[in-house]
Amino acid sequence: VLTDPRGVDPLRAGLADYLGRVRGVVADPARVMVTCGYSQGLGLVCHALHAAGARRIAVEHPSNPEYREIASRAGLEVVSIAVDECGIRIDELERADVDAVAVTPAHQDPTGVVLTSERRAALVSWLRARKAIAIEDDYDAEYRYDRAAVGALQGLEPDRVVYAGSASKILAPALRLGWLVLPPSLVDAVCDEKVLADRATASIEQHALADFLTRGELDRHLRRMRIVYRARRDAIVEALAKELPEARVRGIAAGLHVNVELPASDDERAIRDESYRRGIQFSTALGEYAPYADDALPTLMLGYARMPEPAIRIGVHELASAILATREGVSR
Amino acid sequence: VLTDPRGVDPLRAGLADYLGRVRGVVADPARVMVTCGYSQGLGLVCHALHAAGARRIAVEHPSNPEYREIASRAGLEVVSIAVDECGIRIDELERADVDAVAVTPAHQDPTGVVLTSERRAALVSWLRARKAIAIEDDYDAEYRYDRAAVGALQGLEPDRVVYAGSASKILAPALRLGWLVLPPSLVDAVCDEKVLADRATASIEQHALADFLTRGELDRHLRRMRIVYRARRDAIVEALAKELPEARVRGIAAGLHVNVELPASDDERAIRDESYRRGIQFSTALGEYAPYADDALPTLMLGYARMPEPAIRIGVHELASAILATREGVSR
Repeated sequence: VLTDPRGVDPLRAGLADYLGRVRGVVADPARVMVTCGYSQGLGLVCHALHAAGARRIAVEHPSNPEYREIASRAGLEVVSIAVDECGIRIDELERADVDAVAVTPAHQDPTGVVLTSERRAALVSWLRARKAIAIEDDYDAEYRYDRAAVGALQGLEPDRVVYAGSASKILAPALRLGWLVLPPSLVDAVCDEKVLADRATASIEQHALADFLTRGELDRHLRRMRIVYRARRDAIVEALAKELPEARVRGIAAGLHVNVELPASDDERAIRDESYRRGIQFSTALGEYAPYADDALPTLMLGYARMPEPAIRIGVHELASAILATREGVSR
Repeated sequence: VLTDPRGVDPLRAGLADYLGRVRGVVADPARVMVTCGYSQGLGLVCHALHAAGARRIAVEHPSNPEYREIASRAGLEVVSIAVDECGIRIDELERADVDAVAVTPAHQDPTGVVLTSERRAALVSWLRARKAIAIEDDYDAEYRYDRAAVGALQGLEPDRVVYAGSASKILAPALRLGWLVLPPSLVDAVCDEKVLADRATASIEQHALADFLTRGELDRHLRRMRIVYRARRDAIVEALAKELPEARVRGIAAGLHVNVELPASDDERAIRDESYRRGIQFSTALGEYAPYADDALPTLMLGYARMPEPAIRIGVHELASAILATREGVSR
């Protein structure tokens, strides 16, 4: 009796049900694979695509450089496609001569925009015409605060979209659990890759998560946390308006961080270093996404997953004085 | 605060202590990496070696074809080196023009021989002269029944041997926990590969295993299980002598399966199929290791990890009649 590389049955069944109900994913358990997180899932799919003859993959510009590296290690040539305020540019994608594309439609990583319905339709048309595959990282879909999140792209074209989700942001990064919903044509090939990568994901947490899902606890957890995180986000946005009126919050009300754009005259790295000295840690657009965001304004990515509201107000105040210090060329 | 790709501190400390004490491994926690099992660890090391300029890796012949595939996916050319009754042939290795070698010194997989002390010394000399790296899969070292297992090769040359162990056979395959002890020169490169593979191994079981190790429970578990498994192995060997006197048990008294060699006139595949129809499942040398064991006699690999002794006697009796049926060309 060999271990199923796709993961344990109860979790695959629970995920198929949950993703169908909450994200509009067309999922049947046979097409669900449990992974050790999004990075692994992306690597498995890229290897399987490469083995099936794919040679070029498009990624969003800007996007996480680690994911580019993962695709490139799988033998794929990585092509950058610009993201504007409506999401990835489909006209550029059409000209890119690629076999696949990796996208973050629910909340673009890192710009925070949403792929518009027109672009989603155009992307699906392109997938069909080109017979290409999209890898949909359903990033931050569970944490949309101003309205219900748009459904998954996968629901529009399940035979050409790999859906990818993860427990890292909705439950705990320490779990290292992610999941893929695969087009039927890719199931066997991705299973082969999973066997070579690590045979199968550890099963104890899989059973625990299956139980959590089927008892409705994940829904309850997300309802609770949306209220908590939304209040934190509102607190940051409010504190920024007061302390740093020249800063501009970019992207929709979603996720676990806000992108804060500063005037071009600010020095992103100096601000990060000065803030770090004062005990405030955050990522920055150039720091994390270089060299794929050279033309971006200085942008701070302020996370609030572990910040209670009072700490947020104090933190933004301290951040503002750190920024002032860099502008005055002094450090405290 | 980023997750350490090497794993959680208490487990790395616990493993360094345990492996030093029980296997003679030269380990300090900074060089220990927790993985999702041996397959993943092998892949990470092969990728890191390839990134550092390695081009060819030697593997034992026969050896697990999946491991060859993993090395090959990492870009390494795989070269077969014969195994005889003393282990891998170092004279062949010296002529092979390779940068690395993967070995199973404690209990060769699948032949069951042990690397002799002369061969171990010759392997270490070759590693130094060639400035090569060995990957030591410390397969079955914890389950040696006739005497204390020979110490790890890594203890002889810690700067040129990657030690690899796993919880799959000593505790539970469902855990998906393995570990590497790396030469200092490879730590950073293997960390980079781990980040790209899955960032880090899930941490909850790591803390559980650390607790199990530091309380001495693993030592107690292994002492108990060695007695149980040894009795099962003795029961199989005894039943085979009675039921199938023409069969020959190969390899040392170790591990969780016995290799049973049959006369050349027997049909390995037919025996496997007929046994399967009777509810007896096992791997076979040609079935699992083809095409790297074409010259081997028909060999059944009878596992007893989940077989209580009474079931073993009944199973061997049924196996013997399945073999008789294939010889007579009838199936029951």
